[in-house]
Amino acid sequence: MVKVAVLGYGTVGSGVVEVLQKNQDAITEKLNETIEVKYILDLREFPGDPNESLVVHDYSIILEDTEVSIICETMGGVEPAYTFSKKALLTGKSVCTSNKELVAAHGPELIRIAKENHCNYMFEASVGGGIPIIRPLNSSLTPEKIEGITGILNGTTNFILTKMRDEEADFADVLKEAQEMGFAEKNPEADVEGHDAGRKIAILSSLMYGETVKYDAVSTEGITKISPIDFEYASSLGYTIKLLAMSKENNGAPFAMVAPFLINKSNPLFAVDGVFNGILVKGNMLGNTMYYGAGAGKLPTASAVVGDVIDCARHKNVSISCNWKESEKQMHSIEEVSRRFLVRFKATSETTQPQMKELFDASKVIVLEASKSEFAVITGVMTEAEYKRKAEKVLDILGMIRIEE
Amino acid sequence: MVKVAVLGYGTVGSGVVEVLQKNQDAITEKLNETIEVKYILDLREFPGDPNESLVVHDYSIILEDTEVSIICETMGGVEPAYTFSKKALLTGKSVCTSNKELVAAHGPELIRIAKENHCNYMFEASVGGGIPIIRPLNSSLTPEKIEGITGILNGTTNFILTKMRDEEADFADVLKEAQEMGFAEKNPEADVEGHDAGRKIAILSSLMYGETVKYDAVSTEGITKISPIDFEYASSLGYTIKLLAMSKENNGAPFAMVAPFLINKSNPLFAVDGVFNGILVKGNMLGNTMYYGAGAGKLPTASAVVGDVIDCARHKNVSISCNWKESEKQMHSIEEVSRRFLVRFKATSETTQPQMKELFDASKVIVLEASKSEFAVITGVMTEAEYKRKAEKVLDILGMIRIEE
Repeated sequence: MVKVAVLGYGTVGSGVVEVLQKNQDAITEKLNETIEVKYILDLREFPGDPNESLVVHDYSIILEDTEVSIICETMGGVEPAYTFSKKALLTGKSVCTSNKELVAAHGPELIRIAKENHCNYMFEASVGGGIPIIRPLNSSLTPEKIEGITGILNGTTNFILTKMRDEEADFADVLKEAQEMGFAEKNPEADVEGHDAGRKIAILSSLMYGETVKYDAVSTEGITKISPIDFEYASSLGYTIKLLAMSKENNGAPFAMVAPFLINKSNPLFAVDGVFNGILVKGNMLGNTMYYGAGAGKLPTASAVVGDVIDCARHKNVSISCNWKESEKQMHSIEEVSRRFLVRFKATSETTQPQMKELFDASKVIVLEASKSEFAVITGVMTEAEYKRKAEKVLDILGMIRIEE
Repeated sequence: MVKVAVLGYGTVGSGVVEVLQKNQDAITEKLNETIEVKYILDLREFPGDPNESLVVHDYSIILEDTEVSIICETMGGVEPAYTFSKKALLTGKSVCTSNKELVAAHGPELIRIAKENHCNYMFEASVGGGIPIIRPLNSSLTPEKIEGITGILNGTTNFILTKMRDEEADFADVLKEAQEMGFAEKNPEADVEGHDAGRKIAILSSLMYGETVKYDAVSTEGITKISPIDFEYASSLGYTIKLLAMSKENNGAPFAMVAPFLINKSNPLFAVDGVFNGILVKGNMLGNTMYYGAGAGKLPTASAVVGDVIDCARHKNVSISCNWKESEKQMHSIEEVSRRFLVRFKATSETTQPQMKELFDASKVIVLEASKSEFAVITGVMTEAEYKRKAEKVLDILGMIRIEE
């Protein structure tokens, strides 16, 4: 019998208890042992809840109970999750978490402490919800030199962008709708400004390099400036717009960023719509593989936590390999990264199509039927810095979206 | 130092040696140990090959060398691979294979022998080439009751179908081209008749149920009867045609089959084109996840073998969990499975649109601009058996394709 404690009886925590209880027979069959929830730590009481009797308010009860070998940390936020996780690992209890904020901030330290104490710090649920991506990187793609990871890592923004495209709707309207449907937080900043995706790509980049890529080193741009007309330009070119989180090298200089991108049909992420996530990993031998599924949600995320619990139960007193050192990986700014840009201009006597075509070395000028007062160009290949220098010379830029080829 | 032997220096075997040598630094970093190829077993000599000195012709040299702890079996075919694998496992050497034929025929026995001898029989490369799918099923989706697996598991047929669609070309012409390009075998039967995909879905089904699904229990239909006009009907409906391998339950009765299917844009497999594979797994908590990548090819397949080698090196004398028993899972025939069918008819005075509409309880009749001498209907939902009974009454059926919804 494996006994676990769940810290935080919120959405994911209650999902963990539900998965463990509902699928107990299937889990027992695979593990040859039963997993039982012994405690649920929460500040609140849950009168009438079937698991009411498991609720405790004092973490030391869990910490001191030697029967409990695995902790599911589903509290979110850095503190007290960080202190709680550290204490558990120091007593040899494994910790399985869905907490991307904590993993991005203190992951490698907690992994090291786990190793020193012959237990495990597991975080499959911290990126891509229920999609297996941490374990494939740590255990399947081990022969590969990973050359790049590009993902749609935030379901909220992907839902918003998909709806904006399909219904030709404004960002603000769709955001409001997403909030009403529970797909977006009341304070949506972490999602729509790309911070959530930034934390997730920092975690994936760290696993890619085996060293710590700090969240601060990820350049982030959100989707708040995307408008329905951007989708009209996109679709006239056979593109769609996705908020991509990417980590790769530019002439040997590693960079990581989150920003809206134009991608076309040949990109496997093109068809990843709605609240789904997709993660494209490029290996030097394997080429591209993609992992797709529910990137958030109670049960998918809980399922990933429970998958880690089972892995911990299979590896008692054995530390599962995870190549993520505390040393910091030096990342470069995106200034020197080259690509094409779609740039929209207000048509004026100072900003004419031929002038902009020349200035931006454009391969294409696009004028939409619906809107003759503006036009757009697809620039030549240039660095972010070059683009900025040129853009500073023009008064009437209405918007810019990068093109991922 | 971990020493391995490679059995068979063909496409995959030479790929395994290449991956181990080219990515040695990356592998050593993750494993904290170096992996070295000590022997290559092949009947042939390879004069001038940089690994010429490693080639041996006598398997007993490898078997008796206690330094060799892991065997890569990349020979293909049931014998002598079966005997060689068994002998290795009985001496405690782990075996990593790309051999789907052997895994489908004797997998669970070899897994049991490995367990009894504290070593491992690993077969990630046997399904989906370089796509991690065996390990996600065995180690990530462990909390799930898997409700269904549907995949594009054969790159050759997916390449042919994609080209037939994009170039409005005939099956025979595209097959010939694929053969010239090396994407199809000279004897293409195993691919185009669905036998290869059938073996792979038998393996995945076995992991899904934890019991052996025999290849014989998989109903298979190939793509040889698919014609360009089928794609015209498909595209007029927003569908495409894919050779799907599926394993799921129909009212509690499990079945597995391979056949061409019409699928629409909302299916994540819709966009899986060319030689790529995609595998959609539905769990009861997680919903759908999809795994996409190169389903064949020298280096992707070799990378999957080497991933298994690294996993074995990490689990010395420890058997990695694999829930696949030798007992046979009772599968049902597809006769009672219900779905819609697209049926094409030659238009005659006995076979008219209203008659066929009524007979097949059709929701739709389709007449293509290009071809007035025939028409098609989308039938109501009916079992395979009901469809057959009705179809027997009609002389002028030109073709039938199942619809996956």
